[in-house]
Amino acid sequence: MYTLYVGNKNYSSWSLRGWLATRLSGAPFREVPVGLTGVYNPANRAFSPTALVPALHDGATMVWDSLAISEFLAERHPGMWPADPIARAWARSITAEMHSGFSALRNDMTMCIRERLDVRPWSDALAANIARVGEIWTDSRARFGQGGPFLCGAFSIADVFYGPVAFRFQTYGVTPAGTAGAYLSALLAHPFLREWEAAALAETTIVEADEPRVLYRDRLRAAGRLSG
Amino acid sequence: MYTLYVGNKNYSSWSLRGWLATRLSGAPFREVPVGLTGVYNPANRAFSPTALVPALHDGATMVWDSLAISEFLAERHPGMWPADPIARAWARSITAEMHSGFSALRNDMTMCIRERLDVRPWSDALAANIARVGEIWTDSRARFGQGGPFLCGAFSIADVFYGPVAFRFQTYGVTPAGTAGAYLSALLAHPFLREWEAAALAETTIVEADEPRVLYRDRLRAAGRLSG
Repeated sequence: MYTLYVGNKNYSSWSLRGWLATRLSGAPFREVPVGLTGVYNPANRAFSPTALVPALHDGATMVWDSLAISEFLAERHPGMWPADPIARAWARSITAEMHSGFSALRNDMTMCIRERLDVRPWSDALAANIARVGEIWTDSRARFGQGGPFLCGAFSIADVFYGPVAFRFQTYGVTPAGTAGAYLSALLAHPFLREWEAAALAETTIVEADEPRVLYRDRLRAAGRLSG
Repeated sequence: MYTLYVGNKNYSSWSLRGWLATRLSGAPFREVPVGLTGVYNPANRAFSPTALVPALHDGATMVWDSLAISEFLAERHPGMWPADPIARAWARSITAEMHSGFSALRNDMTMCIRERLDVRPWSDALAANIARVGEIWTDSRARFGQGGPFLCGAFSIADVFYGPVAFRFQTYGVTPAGTAGAYLSALLAHPFLREWEAAALAETTIVEADEPRVLYRDRLRAAGRLSG
């Protein structure tokens, strides 16, 4: 049985990706919750060389980083990527694009599932990130979405990587129109996301360093739009 | 035959990764050079949805992002990842860690193969990134490096992802000791890296926005350590 180390469900977007991928694999796994503090914790190196979550253990094999975990599991458990090679190449591209990019979205719309907050006006970089997400969702559904309501039809690793984006859009009131909006609704309604969301809402820990209201206040202050 | 779109060889670290992966595949490919300007160029959307390099085309199949390209090729061309499952899980983890992280290294030691420059004192974040690279190299060699001089023995996608780091270390005079230093030498001496380096040194285009001396001057100015 696999062991998966995950952080606070309300805050940890990378943990969510690792957890969704492991759920998607269909394999049984044991979850080990890791309390995040907002700063680097060397004690976490006991289970992950980076001290970060998620990390997956399979006996002596240790895999860290959500995308490495996804590919590791996809080798062993069929159906996690689209079966069609052209759709799979597309799914890998939009997954890798999310994995290495979208820094404005990460920084300005940090994941906090329980929160509802409007951070308009969006910076140009944030607006461009949001527009690109909408384009990816719309193009994916048009090209490869015939077999189901998700990006390439059936729920796959590509949807896993946009899961945290769905919670961000819900928190910050981002409401894409048309196909992208319908996909957002489908993703938020997926049983795996509902299960994670319920667990996040049951958490009571506040990590001030990860709280959007604190981050947003600091950003306004740095921009000279808030005194004190 | 594949078609690979790559940017300026002196500057484009992501292009280097895509190119190394494609060379490693052993498959023939046609290279299309894309002149970078330092700003987003919507014309590049003709070959890549992100307007970024690298992008790989195989007839109607389009793959963008260096890690998606690597996994796409690894499915078709054996030997790009280590054959042993435990070594492969490790290789995927250190590859994904490089793909999504190391922002201080990227920003403060931007790739410019022809340049030699000392940017000490390093920020704490940069020093931590450099230390982590040394640790990854040392641990990988100790655990999985028995079959050859590279991270997991034979040259693999993991080495592909640390290729741009090798050029950065050469440019900025980062000289790890021991095993990590020996690995750095082996990587810089690999025929694929020598081939790319020769092509980079033959380039004459200057992209001022990507020039380390300009970026470093701007950083000093922002920190109040340089007037004017």
